[in-house]
Amino acid sequence: MAKQYSEMSKAELSQLNSELQKQYDEIVESGISLDLSRGKPSKEQLDLSEELFTALNSSSQCISSTGFDVRNYGLLQGVEEARQLFGQLLGVPAENILVGGNSSLTMQYDAFARCMLFGVGEHRMSWMKQGDAKILCPAPGYDRHFAICEEFRTPMIPVRLTGHGPDMDQVEELVANDPTIKGLYCVPKYSNPTGETYDEKTVRRIAELKPAAKDFRVFWDNAYLYHDFGKVTEVANIFDYTNGTENEDMVYEFFSTSKITFPGSGVAVMASSKANIDFAIKHMSVQSINADKVNQMRQVLYLKSPENVREHMKKHAAILKPKFELVEQKFHEAFDGTGIATWTEPDGGYFISLDIFPNTAKTTFNLCKAAGLKITGAGATFPYKKDPDSKNLRICPSYASAEDLAKACDVLAVCAKLAATRRLLELE
Amino acid sequence: MAKQYSEMSKAELSQLNSELQKQYDEIVESGISLDLSRGKPSKEQLDLSEELFTALNSSSQCISSTGFDVRNYGLLQGVEEARQLFGQLLGVPAENILVGGNSSLTMQYDAFARCMLFGVGEHRMSWMKQGDAKILCPAPGYDRHFAICEEFRTPMIPVRLTGHGPDMDQVEELVANDPTIKGLYCVPKYSNPTGETYDEKTVRRIAELKPAAKDFRVFWDNAYLYHDFGKVTEVANIFDYTNGTENEDMVYEFFSTSKITFPGSGVAVMASSKANIDFAIKHMSVQSINADKVNQMRQVLYLKSPENVREHMKKHAAILKPKFELVEQKFHEAFDGTGIATWTEPDGGYFISLDIFPNTAKTTFNLCKAAGLKITGAGATFPYKKDPDSKNLRICPSYASAEDLAKACDVLAVCAKLAATRRLLELE
Repeated sequence: MAKQYSEMSKAELSQLNSELQKQYDEIVESGISLDLSRGKPSKEQLDLSEELFTALNSSSQCISSTGFDVRNYGLLQGVEEARQLFGQLLGVPAENILVGGNSSLTMQYDAFARCMLFGVGEHRMSWMKQGDAKILCPAPGYDRHFAICEEFRTPMIPVRLTGHGPDMDQVEELVANDPTIKGLYCVPKYSNPTGETYDEKTVRRIAELKPAAKDFRVFWDNAYLYHDFGKVTEVANIFDYTNGTENEDMVYEFFSTSKITFPGSGVAVMASSKANIDFAIKHMSVQSINADKVNQMRQVLYLKSPENVREHMKKHAAILKPKFELVEQKFHEAFDGTGIATWTEPDGGYFISLDIFPNTAKTTFNLCKAAGLKITGAGATFPYKKDPDSKNLRICPSYASAEDLAKACDVLAVCAKLAATRRLLELE
Repeated sequence: MAKQYSEMSKAELSQLNSELQKQYDEIVESGISLDLSRGKPSKEQLDLSEELFTALNSSSQCISSTGFDVRNYGLLQGVEEARQLFGQLLGVPAENILVGGNSSLTMQYDAFARCMLFGVGEHRMSWMKQGDAKILCPAPGYDRHFAICEEFRTPMIPVRLTGHGPDMDQVEELVANDPTIKGLYCVPKYSNPTGETYDEKTVRRIAELKPAAKDFRVFWDNAYLYHDFGKVTEVANIFDYTNGTENEDMVYEFFSTSKITFPGSGVAVMASSKANIDFAIKHMSVQSINADKVNQMRQVLYLKSPENVREHMKKHAAILKPKFELVEQKFHEAFDGTGIATWTEPDGGYFISLDIFPNTAKTTFNLCKAAGLKITGAGATFPYKKDPDSKNLRICPSYASAEDLAKACDVLAVCAKLAATRRLLELE
């Protein structure tokens, strides 16, 4: 067991710092080129969906169950078969499903833009016209959610995460008292990057919020709903708690097949109340005649059923699980007993959240970069890239090979330790 | 030769009116159900692209010329092969091409939204913040362009069409003197619905505009660039006139394969200056990781080359031309000598613009509707649906079968004539 850094004498720390610096110099000398920043599936995972290419190979497969030829214009809400399948996957009726294009990020951006420009529904003032529209952002969180808020200059308020979802005491108090707080971003299952899943009580408390803003909306980004690779965790269906209540229109849920079939060539989905879907469709009809229904049909023909999706996801899990385990093993070997790092060991999703010694994230990032290891930018997981403790790093184990992953973890560990010794020695 | 309605005595008109009313009643009695409002390809046209389904049938075809696996995230500007092909089709370098998703309407809406929200480029104030942003709309024009302006509450100023593009005297004077005029919508080839193609002089005058607004933009919707079915008409490449001038950033061009392969499942394209493309990409990167590159690759593998696209479009032409000729023949039979109707006889595109007796478009529409014939709404081709003469109807010959088309034209002619006699008799 290594000695805790905080218990080391200055001499011990200096000695350790010298050793780490030597290791680091050797790494730089060796000239590596590695990347831990890519939160995307590996080639091996993409190959799982090879049969998608031929799932739709004839126009005879293009007549939907409602008799519509999906090759032609129309059906802005999506093909019936796709609405049915995604309804089953998300546990909502097909009429509450809007099947879109290739990107749930685009659907989220567009939904947010509609709130800003046109308000959340008929006879609602646009968020933009109301002036300040603040958004609650559980942090560390998904940088692309934060980027949408920045793009529209909507102030972000970070909210603490508990390991089972946002701190609901904090959320409840904030939304109850401030009518300019208009939204809450959530990744309820295997949160990016902490990997935590909201427990039933948290989901219920979100569903039962009493916001001062009557046009408050929850952006429920359920990107990893079927992306288990460890113990299968269930997340509660938030609509079970909002249906029939005054919060019936409060939630927009998003999902996609990007990490089921092909990233950026799959099908994205929004689920919400009938009123919200109708309002979205009304505005979307100015922007589009329809999403790519041929691809919707192709994905449905390939994915077939919720049962088949679950089976398919087990194949992804079989590839992902060893990579996550490898990173976790490497982190144990490197950090156990040092007291300078903690990390998440999620049962699904795409990320490991690594907390290193406070105020060393930027130095560690720069050391990695200079050595030839790319990692996600320090601070990226916080609104305005402001990590209050400058300690969080998002690790993406999915894309690299096992060999590269092992090497990258070794390099990262040396950099993080070196940065910690520098900090403790007040060298920087 | 029929007698001109305007030269008929009241007795003759009354007699004619009675005869037409009788014909109309018989049509209503017969219980038809026809549709001339669908500006979309027929099943026969869709079947032309059957081989698109199998053009990409293996992951081995998914490595782009730059070595990128198009199945995975990335390449927001599009796959290199697609940028090359569309660059050749539009006559611009590939670096000026942004290949998008399934809808050029979405690309136009999003480009317009960026102008409104973020301005036309770096250090430019958003159109929204500047207050009034007026848009010039050649009319009759494309209803979906007008809908975008209405959605963003940007006042539309109708501009007269000359048969070879907008009245440039009017356009030049308006843009030179009013800095709140920020945009001009154009369908330069086979304009929707008039079918006219802008002549070289008009294109040049647009390229050489001296707008008072320094952030003036031309939305160049080149939807029908390869959609000839009669005499092949060439439209000048507007970038040939703007490149290297102070208007270099003035034009956004749009194009898609929707009416080449499958409507709403093709690939859309924006062409513009490098500065405009870079600015678009910067904001699009918040909205999307990439468009559907697998479909981009599929379309390229199927369409192959500009020469092949031209050959493919000849097959569309062979289906469309007889339908347009049939409508024109029917209109000649019905209206020649009556003096109550004129219509365009385009060499391409999807529409015939029919002008009937002034102030009868709504009555004609209602008569058609009551008889079971759906036509595009009266006024739809004008901003705010306000046809100043209430005479323009947009006819879509592409979708219906020849048999239905012939019947529909007969019904439409009876309705238009009946409405004219009513008007002349001051019955309504």
